[in-house]
Amino acid sequence: MVLTLAINYKAYPTAYGPKALEIAKAADEIASKYLNDVEIIVIPPATEISSISQALEFAKVFAQHIDPFSDGAHTGYITVGMIKDAGATGVMINHSEHRLRIDEIEVILGKAKEAGLRTLVCANTPKVAASISVLDPEAIAIEPPELIGTGIPVSKAKPEVITNSLIKIREVNNKVKVLTGAGITKGEDVEAAIKLGTEGVLIASAVMKHPNPKQKILELAEALHKSIK
Amino acid sequence: MVLTLAINYKAYPTAYGPKALEIAKAADEIASKYLNDVEIIVIPPATEISSISQALEFAKVFAQHIDPFSDGAHTGYITVGMIKDAGATGVMINHSEHRLRIDEIEVILGKAKEAGLRTLVCANTPKVAASISVLDPEAIAIEPPELIGTGIPVSKAKPEVITNSLIKIREVNNKVKVLTGAGITKGEDVEAAIKLGTEGVLIASAVMKHPNPKQKILELAEALHKSIK
Amino acid sequence: MVLTLAINYKAYPTAYGPKALEIAKAADEIASKYLNDVEIIVIPPATEISSISQALEFAKVFAQHIDPFSDGAHTGYITVGMIKDAGATGVMINHSEHRLRIDEIEVILGKAKEAGLRTLVCANTPKVAASISVLDPEAIAIEPPELIGTGIPVSKAKPEVITNSLIKIREVNNKVKVLTGAGITKGEDVEAAIKLGTEGVLIASAVMKHPNPKQKILELAEALHKSIK
Amino acid sequence: MVLTLAINYKAYPTAYGPKALEIAKAADEIASKYLNDVEIIVIPPATEISSISQALEFAKVFAQHIDPFSDGAHTGYITVGMIKDAGATGVMINHSEHRLRIDEIEVILGKAKEAGLRTLVCANTPKVAASISVLDPEAIAIEPPELIGTGIPVSKAKPEVITNSLIKIREVNNKVKVLTGAGITKGEDVEAAIKLGTEGVLIASAVMKHPNPKQKILELAEALHKSIK
Repeated sequence: MVLTLAINYKAYPTAYGPKALEIAKAADEIASKYLNDVEIIVIPPATEISSISQALEFAKVFAQHIDPFSDGAHTGYITVGMIKDAGATGVMINHSEHRLRIDEIEVILGKAKEAGLRTLVCANTPKVAASISVLDPEAIAIEPPELIGTGIPVSKAKPEVITNSLIKIREVNNKVKVLTGAGITKGEDVEAAIKLGTEGVLIASAVMKHPNPKQKILELAEALHKSIK
Repeated sequence: MVLTLAINYKAYPTAYGPKALEIAKAADEIASKYLNDVEIIVIPPATEISSISQALEFAKVFAQHIDPFSDGAHTGYITVGMIKDAGATGVMINHSEHRLRIDEIEVILGKAKEAGLRTLVCANTPKVAASISVLDPEAIAIEPPELIGTGIPVSKAKPEVITNSLIKIREVNNKVKVLTGAGITKGEDVEAAIKLGTEGVLIASAVMKHPNPKQKILELAEALHKSIK
Repeated sequence: MVLTLAINYKAYPTAYGPKALEIAKAADEIASKYLNDVEIIVIPPATEISSISQALEFAKVFAQHIDPFSDGAHTGYITVGMIKDAGATGVMINHSEHRLRIDEIEVILGKAKEAGLRTLVCANTPKVAASISVLDPEAIAIEPPELIGTGIPVSKAKPEVITNSLIKIREVNNKVKVLTGAGITKGEDVEAAIKLGTEGVLIASAVMKHPNPKQKILELAEALHKSIK
Repeated sequence: MVLTLAINYKAYPTAYGPKALEIAKAADEIASKYLNDVEIIVIPPATEISSISQALEFAKVFAQHIDPFSDGAHTGYITVGMIKDAGATGVMINHSEHRLRIDEIEVILGKAKEAGLRTLVCANTPKVAASISVLDPEAIAIEPPELIGTGIPVSKAKPEVITNSLIKIREVNNKVKVLTGAGITKGEDVEAAIKLGTEGVLIASAVMKHPNPKQKILELAEALHKSIK
C-alpha cells in the first residue's frame, strides 16, 4: 500500500522561480526515502512543469489544471499534449478554485487516460465526490472549500465529511483512491486523515507558505509512513 | 405508469408571445385527454413562466434553467424562489446549450427539492448521465448534442447511447426517471424511445418550429399513450 | 433635463411576488408626480417583467440582464425579443454581480438598439466606464463594487471615482447619460451625486430592503426633483 | 519605425516540444537580420515559455493569456509573476478563442504594466478595438473571427474592418500600435496590411501549420521589411 502526499503549489509567490524548484527538490529527496510506502506528487503552475520535471527523479509532477480541448486553435488553453510533453505524469482538475462542468470533467479524464496520464479530481462535498467517482478518475481529493487555507484540518473539524464521502464513493466505485484535503498542516492531521480511511492528503499552504518547506514535507511524509504500520 | 412528454421552448421565436401561449394551451388540452398515462411538461423562457402557468390546468410548467443562488444580491440571475412564485412546478437544468459545473448541479438540485420543485437534468453522454444520477434528480434526459435539432432521432441513429445510459444509470440509481432526447420528431421515434426502456421524451424544434404545433403534440402524446399498452 | 432614479430589484426576496408588484406600483405613483423632471425605472427579474409592465403607466421597466443571442436554440437564455415582448422598454447589463465580456456588450447593445430598447451599462471603475462609453449605450452607471450594498454612498466616500469617470467618459463620448450607483441610501446622497455632475442614481438595497419602500422612493425622487432647481 | 510580426502558437501540435523550439529559433535567427525595422514576437503556450525564452536572443516571447489574479490561492491560473519569471516580456490577451470581460482586461493590463510587461490585446470588431484602446494597451490586433484560420486575409477580404478600426481607435487613442490579424498567410497580405495603415501582423496557422515554418517567417518578415521603405 502506497499513501499519497500531494502538494498543490497554487499561484503562491513560492510557486514559481527558484523557491518552486527548491521545494520540488526537497520533495524529491524525501520521496527517495519512502519509495515503498509514500508517494509525493508536486503540482506546480503550467509555466514550471518542464523545469521542475527535469530536476526530479522520485517525486511525481502533476499539472494544476488542463482544458477540455485537443490540440488545435485554442489560444491560451493548456492541453494534455502540452503537459505530457513538459514532463507531467498526471493532472489534477476541478479544484475548488477552478471548478469544471460535469461534461468537461468527463472529456478531460478521457483525454488524460488516452495519453497515459494519471488523474486526480477534487470534490467539494461527499455527493460531488461520489458523482465524480462514477467517471473513474484514479484519485479523488475531498476538500470542503470553507476549510481550504484555514489550517483547520477537515480530518478533525469535519471528519464526517470524509467518512460520508467514503461511504458514498464506495457505493459506486470501489477502486478510486481517496485523499483528504483542506486545512491539513501537521503530522497529526495526516494521521487522522489516514485513520478515517483515506489513502493520502492534498495540501498547499502548509508547505508553500512555510518558512522551511522541506521540514514540513518531511513531517507530513513521516506521518504518512507511520500511519501505514 | 406515466410517460413524459417534455417540450423545451428554447429561445425560438415561438417561445414567447401569443404563439408561446397558444402552444401551451394546446399542450394543456391534450394533457387533459391522457391524464392517466401521459404527462405533458412545457418548458418556456423565464419571462413566460407566469403568464403560461396561469393559463394551464393539466400540463405542467418547468423553468429552462435556474442559477445556483439563494435570494439576495444576484442581479440578473434566476432563483428557485422566482420560478416557484411565477408558477413553475419544476426546473430543467444542464441542457447542452447551458451546461453547469458539477458543484452547481448539486446546489441547484438541493435548493429545488427544498422548495418542493421537481427536477429534470440533461446529460450529453451515458457516463455523464450516470454521474448526475448520483445527485438524485427526479429525471434525467439523455441528449447526444450532435443530434439535437437535427431531426435524426437518437432512438434510431444511436440507440446504444440510450441503452448504455440506462445500464450505467441503473448501476448507481434505480429510481431516477430517464427520458430520451435529441432528434425526436415523430410518433415512431417516441415509440422507439419507449421500447429502449426510457419513460418519456424531451423534444424542442419538432414542436416549436412546426407549422401546426398542436397536431405535433397530439401525435407525440398519442405515441406515448400507445407505447404503454 | 430629466434625472433618473433606477431601482435594481436584484434577486432580493422582495424582487418577486406581491411585494415586487407593490414596489413597482409605488414607483409608478411617484413617477406620475414628477413626469417633467424625474424618470423612474424599475429593474425586476426576468420572471416579473410581464406582470409588472402590465401594471405600470408612468414608471419604466428594464430587464436586469440579457444574453448576447438572437432567438434560436439557446435554452435558458434571455433574448431581446423576450424582454421586449414582456413589456420592458430597456435593459441594464454588466452589473458588478453579472459582468460581461467586451464583445458581448457590443453585441447586446447592437441587438437592443435594433429592437428599439433603451440601454444602461454598469461600470466598476472610471476606465471601464470610459471604455464602455465608446460602445455608445444610452446610459452608464458607475458602481465601485466595494461600496455596493454597504450604505456608504460613493458620492460621499469616493467622489473622485465619479468625477474621474465623468472626465474620462467625456473625453470619448459627450452624450451618454451618467448615473451614480453603490451605497446610495438617502436624499442627501442623491443630491451629492447630482452635484458631482451625474444625471441620476442607480439604487437597490436602499429600496428593496426598506420596511417602507414607497416612502424611500419618494425621498429619493424628491431629492432628484430638488436637485434640478 | 519598427513593424511587428507576432506569431501565435495557439495549441497546435507544433506549439510544444521540439517543433515549437525549432520555430522559435528560426524566428530568432530571422529577427537578428531585421533588428532595425522588424520585431518578431513568438507567443507559445504557458508550458513552453521558459524553455523558449532561454533559447532566444533577438525575438521576444509573449504569453498567450494570463488571468486577472495576483499571486495567491488561484489553482490552475497563470499570473503576471509566473510568465515574467519564465522569461516572457509581454502578454497577449482577449484572443477570439479566449475572450475576457471588460473589467478583467483592465485588471490584467494594470498588473502587466506594473510588472513591466508589454501588452497586446486582440479585438474582434472596430468598436471593440476602440473600446479596448481606451484602456491603453501597447498594441491592439484586429481579428475578424470569421476569417481566423481561413487563409482569406482580412487585409484583402475586409479592408474596411481595418480602416474603420483605425479611424475609431484614433478618435480615442493616438499612440496604441495596431496590428492586422486573421487570414494573413503571404507576403502580399502583409504588405496590404501595412498599406492600410497598421504597423504589423498577428499570424498563427500560416506559420504553425506550414511544412517549412522558417521559410514562411522569412517571407513575412521580408514583406514587413520591404513595406517600410
